[in-house]
Amino acid sequence: MIGDSVEVKAEDVNNKVVKILGKSFGKAKAKRIAEVLMWSEMCGIKTQGLVKLTGAVPLQNVKPTGKITITKKGRNSSVINGYNNSGALVAQVGVDLAIKRAKKAGIYAVGINGYNTSTGTLSFYANRIADAGFIGVVMARSIASVAPFESIDPLFGTNPMCYAFPTKDKPLIFDMATSALTWYGLVRAKMLNEKIPRGVAIDKNGNITEEPVEALEGALLPFDKGYKGSGLGMVVEIFAGILAGGRFSDTEPENSASLFILAIDPSVLVDASEFRSKCSEMIKRIKSARTKSGNNAIRLPGERAHEAYERCIKTGVVDIDEATLRAIGFIK
Amino acid sequence: MIGDSVEVKAEDVNNKVVKILGKSFGKAKAKRIAEVLMWSEMCGIKTQGLVKLTGAVPLQNVKPTGKITITKKGRNSSVINGYNNSGALVAQVGVDLAIKRAKKAGIYAVGINGYNTSTGTLSFYANRIADAGFIGVVMARSIASVAPFESIDPLFGTNPMCYAFPTKDKPLIFDMATSALTWYGLVRAKMLNEKIPRGVAIDKNGNITEEPVEALEGALLPFDKGYKGSGLGMVVEIFAGILAGGRFSDTEPENSASLFILAIDPSVLVDASEFRSKCSEMIKRIKSARTKSGNNAIRLPGERAHEAYERCIKTGVVDIDEATLRAIGFIK
Repeated sequence: MIGDSVEVKAEDVNNKVVKILGKSFGKAKAKRIAEVLMWSEMCGIKTQGLVKLTGAVPLQNVKPTGKITITKKGRNSSVINGYNNSGALVAQVGVDLAIKRAKKAGIYAVGINGYNTSTGTLSFYANRIADAGFIGVVMARSIASVAPFESIDPLFGTNPMCYAFPTKDKPLIFDMATSALTWYGLVRAKMLNEKIPRGVAIDKNGNITEEPVEALEGALLPFDKGYKGSGLGMVVEIFAGILAGGRFSDTEPENSASLFILAIDPSVLVDASEFRSKCSEMIKRIKSARTKSGNNAIRLPGERAHEAYERCIKTGVVDIDEATLRAIGFIK
Repeated sequence: MIGDSVEVKAEDVNNKVVKILGKSFGKAKAKRIAEVLMWSEMCGIKTQGLVKLTGAVPLQNVKPTGKITITKKGRNSSVINGYNNSGALVAQVGVDLAIKRAKKAGIYAVGINGYNTSTGTLSFYANRIADAGFIGVVMARSIASVAPFESIDPLFGTNPMCYAFPTKDKPLIFDMATSALTWYGLVRAKMLNEKIPRGVAIDKNGNITEEPVEALEGALLPFDKGYKGSGLGMVVEIFAGILAGGRFSDTEPENSASLFILAIDPSVLVDASEFRSKCSEMIKRIKSARTKSGNNAIRLPGERAHEAYERCIKTGVVDIDEATLRAIGFIK
């Protein structure tokens, strides 16, 4: 279902992205936003990458209505209103705050609402929290597009949840959408004029469809097509929607996305160094578990993405959809 | 796969359970433990009910090695060692503590380890936290019995996660095992000499099996048989295992279970009354969503269990497995 892609120099395309975003937001902010988009492309998560600069309402066209503002502050929590600034920027402000405050508070929660478009891949933010030594939990509510189990109306967002844990080595990251396909997966399939996999979405009458246009009028399904995936989508709708001061269970496009961040210093419960060692030991046990075929190649969550990222860093080259590169004017 | 069951007076069977447990732990503790087991039976969650009084190591045979002790205390966290007391008792001590402290701290985490056997259904504890006005997150690590995605060795527990949210009415509860079948589902199938559903477990060589005995030597599968269910199992293994000061990724029977509890006062981020109203409004939207057949009967997570519980309260009658009642000597 994927269109053609080409290998391009990561630096060049990053410069192009910064230039596009810089016109709208200034260079400093553009750089921060570009970092999130490029991270996704380098991790191979194309649905959260430069595709966000394309489509009907591209990221660079959003108009902030004010400064990013802390609207509520407690001893171990804050709420941030993004005033229509880009989600990728506002989320970084929230993550920075969570890390700074968790050092003292031990456990720190941030609710973020009022920003424009989604934040991009959550692993970027959770990874940063774990890099600072904390357990990172990040959940995002987005425009209702997923039908709860047994229903055919969209009431939950694709609602990803991401967990990152510090280890002795790089953070262990688990990032998943609670939907069977991401929203940008739909948008991207539409842009590329491709079908979507069978069984991930229904049309407005509840019939399974492979047409992204019909799915956009209908609904996506929970990732497991069952009540557990649906329930997890609901959990995110509450944490990242209601608790974060955002919207919930509706299809209003305005301020549709909101975010919940939790940073936990493992040392509030156990010895932090022991926590890291044990996480590393667990990884070792998973990696060395038997497989049915006897071919020991078990992949950890996030491992494929991390390897792709490291490869890009090493080679300086990143693989990006031709259609996206054309849409942003990087190639003709 | 279910054996015969009979309707019995809830009060009578509760008295019997208190008597059995009282011999080991004294009446006061026996009552608290019985409450958890009876809650499960009344909710129709038979795998977490009186079956725990049967089998090779029944609940009433556990020997505490000391008093339930707070081993670490922070401003917004505590760790409890259960000293081999019954999990159903120790978990209640942890929940009581979380509720008491969350009133002041806003967000409070409790790690619980060192107790004997599992705690029983998590919804009991999460419901109590939400009844007190807080969001309850409860995760439980148990003896490794689930093979991570792509592997055939058991490395994660059946690792349930439970979320409870206060609403304007009764709490909204979502409780799920991250495995395709619960551990006690396996034990119960073995006891009843029944097969387990196809596709929930593998034998020690990684072949799908329907025989509980083979599954006990092999492994259960993640609930979705995929990487998301496996990743969620891993998340619980870390929170409720490593972070709670418990065991992780092993099959040692001793102190195999541990628990992570998080209580969040919604008012640290938003207005608590508004939070409740919005949760109730979300429930309304879910309940009134369209279904494909046009037959509007969407069930919320926890709804079936709650209805069964209410029915028992009203009628005073509970439906329990005959084999279990015979094993505990309630019937001949």
